[in-house]
Amino acid sequence: MTATLPIQVARLQAEIDELAAISQAPAPAVTRILFSAEDQAARAWLTDRFHAAGLRVRHDAVGNIFARWEGTQPQLPAVATGSHIDAIPHAGKFDGVIGVLGALEAFRALREAGFQPVRSLEIVMFTAEEPTRFGLGCLGSRLLSGALTPAQALAMRSKQGESLFELKTQAGYADDPDLTSVRLPQDVYRAFLELHIEQGPLLEREGLDIGAVEKIAAPSAFRFRLEGSGGHAGGTLMPGRRDALLAASEIVLAVEKAALDSGCPDTVATTGVLTIEPGAINSIPCRALLEIDLRDTDVKTRQKAFDAIQQAAAEICARRRIDLQFESINRDPPAICDPELVELVLREAETNELKARRQISRAYHDSLFMALLCPTVMIFIPCRHGYSHRPDEFASPEQIAAGVRVLAGVLRRLAEA
Amino acid sequence: MTATLPIQVARLQAEIDELAAISQAPAPAVTRILFSAEDQAARAWLTDRFHAAGLRVRHDAVGNIFARWEGTQPQLPAVATGSHIDAIPHAGKFDGVIGVLGALEAFRALREAGFQPVRSLEIVMFTAEEPTRFGLGCLGSRLLSGALTPAQALAMRSKQGESLFELKTQAGYADDPDLTSVRLPQDVYRAFLELHIEQGPLLEREGLDIGAVEKIAAPSAFRFRLEGSGGHAGGTLMPGRRDALLAASEIVLAVEKAALDSGCPDTVATTGVLTIEPGAINSIPCRALLEIDLRDTDVKTRQKAFDAIQQAAAEICARRRIDLQFESINRDPPAICDPELVELVLREAETNELKARRQISRAYHDSLFMALLCPTVMIFIPCRHGYSHRPDEFASPEQIAAGVRVLAGVLRRLAEA
Repeated sequence: MTATLPIQVARLQAEIDELAAISQAPAPAVTRILFSAEDQAARAWLTDRFHAAGLRVRHDAVGNIFARWEGTQPQLPAVATGSHIDAIPHAGKFDGVIGVLGALEAFRALREAGFQPVRSLEIVMFTAEEPTRFGLGCLGSRLLSGALTPAQALAMRSKQGESLFELKTQAGYADDPDLTSVRLPQDVYRAFLELHIEQGPLLEREGLDIGAVEKIAAPSAFRFRLEGSGGHAGGTLMPGRRDALLAASEIVLAVEKAALDSGCPDTVATTGVLTIEPGAINSIPCRALLEIDLRDTDVKTRQKAFDAIQQAAAEICARRRIDLQFESINRDPPAICDPELVELVLREAETNELKARRQISRAYHDSLFMALLCPTVMIFIPCRHGYSHRPDEFASPEQIAAGVRVLAGVLRRLAEA
Repeated sequence: MTATLPIQVARLQAEIDELAAISQAPAPAVTRILFSAEDQAARAWLTDRFHAAGLRVRHDAVGNIFARWEGTQPQLPAVATGSHIDAIPHAGKFDGVIGVLGALEAFRALREAGFQPVRSLEIVMFTAEEPTRFGLGCLGSRLLSGALTPAQALAMRSKQGESLFELKTQAGYADDPDLTSVRLPQDVYRAFLELHIEQGPLLEREGLDIGAVEKIAAPSAFRFRLEGSGGHAGGTLMPGRRDALLAASEIVLAVEKAALDSGCPDTVATTGVLTIEPGAINSIPCRALLEIDLRDTDVKTRQKAFDAIQQAAAEICARRRIDLQFESINRDPPAICDPELVELVLREAETNELKARRQISRAYHDSLFMALLCPTVMIFIPCRHGYSHRPDEFASPEQIAAGVRVLAGVLRRLAEA
């Protein structure tokens, strides 16, 4: 019976393309930064799509958007699914988006197949899964789950010095300045499911359709601020210099080395942000800011890499007479998905004659935090070459449809009772 | 008699402070980028000061501004002096400025002392001595002297893709779209003098008041564009990466090494600009842009360092599977100042009981190009710790007055016949 679900791939693909066009960067790139004009336009567009599908839409004080299909027993904990629609600079159109629009298509297909849920079904569009604006990812799901306190969130500043309160208010989420209403109670959801592209090459390489995520790798991120001494690039001889970029460059290489030397092939470390001041060709860089992302499936090897980076940075900056400041952005434990839900995903794939396997997620997701709140699972579909966070990120309509089919099947099973 | 010149240090200092307040960056930093609102306001302010001093002001098609004190024999080649008032991001208030406002004070003092020039005297404020906007410094003096052709200038693009024509037209310099009128004939000036802070520590260290510049070091600048492959910082394991920032970091360190290994202590090499894309913490950098400044008093050791950097960049990018593009920004020979003018500067210092020496300039200046047009000399005054291109750049009113005194004395001598 599941195979007969009337999933309309063309309708879903058209919506994915429509949303991708709401972007700061020209196609095929997609850029949608939290509370930018484009993010706002995308939120409005999405709310329209939810309304058109007959869902009841609400938002919370930090801009998480909830679209609800009321069950016959609305007092029971609902079954939730969802993801995000913000996008880092020059990203692609599938990351996050298929978890939101795919869920919408799953709801529509279930309704068109005559299904009536007992438990309510809810799509959640999380605020700022991407860390672009505040340096910290999963703002919405961290607040929902209590992994981030309202006080911590309100103390955060963007790179331009804006506060979350200021930005959310400008964006029209002016209610509850304390953010205390955002956190959800533990029993509000029976389960949370997130459909997502793999962002890695495993499923494609093995010719599989579905990954049932058992575990999400432990992410951490931190910042180094370096302060040396500027001066004229012509007038200052080499020996007297305290060039912040030279120290930063050594740190960038030490970050790579720490990951390669960790002893675990899953350790990944990336300096994704490096900015210097004053940034003029004839001026010695006096300041540098580095933002480093470090992840591992194993908390112990992650710690080993972290310690190696810290030691290297301290040694480099002492030798080069650079002042070094460290700032932790986040340091989260891994998440374990619910075994029963993992089993349900694998069974649903089998029922639909889709090839599936268990796997871990190296990227982190809102599910990392939803897992603190309720039983959680992620459903991965392959993406071409494992590429993500770039304009040529790609999943075929058939691959997406397979994921939506499994999602819809599991949602149905969970909402039946 | 020179000692009696009524130089008004307080008036000059007040003007330096007034001009410093026209800045994009808050005090004490000064930022005035070519044809920005602040550069435009500073140009208007300066033109008013010139008019108030009774000078005849004209500008050319690229925005060089000329303020003329007509001599009794205006058909004779004039004596020129000047510098620039644009400032790199977060610079100080003396670089360039004292060569323009100091010249104005010298003119006023000479007039107030009853001097009437035979040859006309002219102050030149050069357009874009700093390379911030177009990557190429000394735009105005290069065009005046023919070191840059109008076609080359019109082909240039700023980092934001703007053309010089577009920007100069918006700035109100709409005449002569071909820029052919900017170049000056060889016999238009009898001499050019530039008063400037040393931007190095030599004069301060030796307790001297004045440096008579004999030679200006040979500057060169170039750009590397690196293209690797982006991707999600979590999902892409280390071995498969083509991270443009890792290659860029190795190049930054190779630039330092090339200068240290050149065999000449005067070789200086600086990576002043490094930007990466997409510049998001959870995304592998796929592109990097580096701008490198390389200078030497000796063209041969400069070439040696240049070759070492090129070789290292090629090796690094081949090893890391990064596409490498090279672009030359400029590569100028050193300038030799006029021996007779150097002698005049030293003699004028002596007459004023100021301690002076001959020296070279490691920084380059509009004088590098004016030397192609007419006999040229630079007059250096000390600046604290040799600091320049930073907010704490400093020269005392007395040090500036000493420079203005020597400048005025030499101008008088040259304009007498």
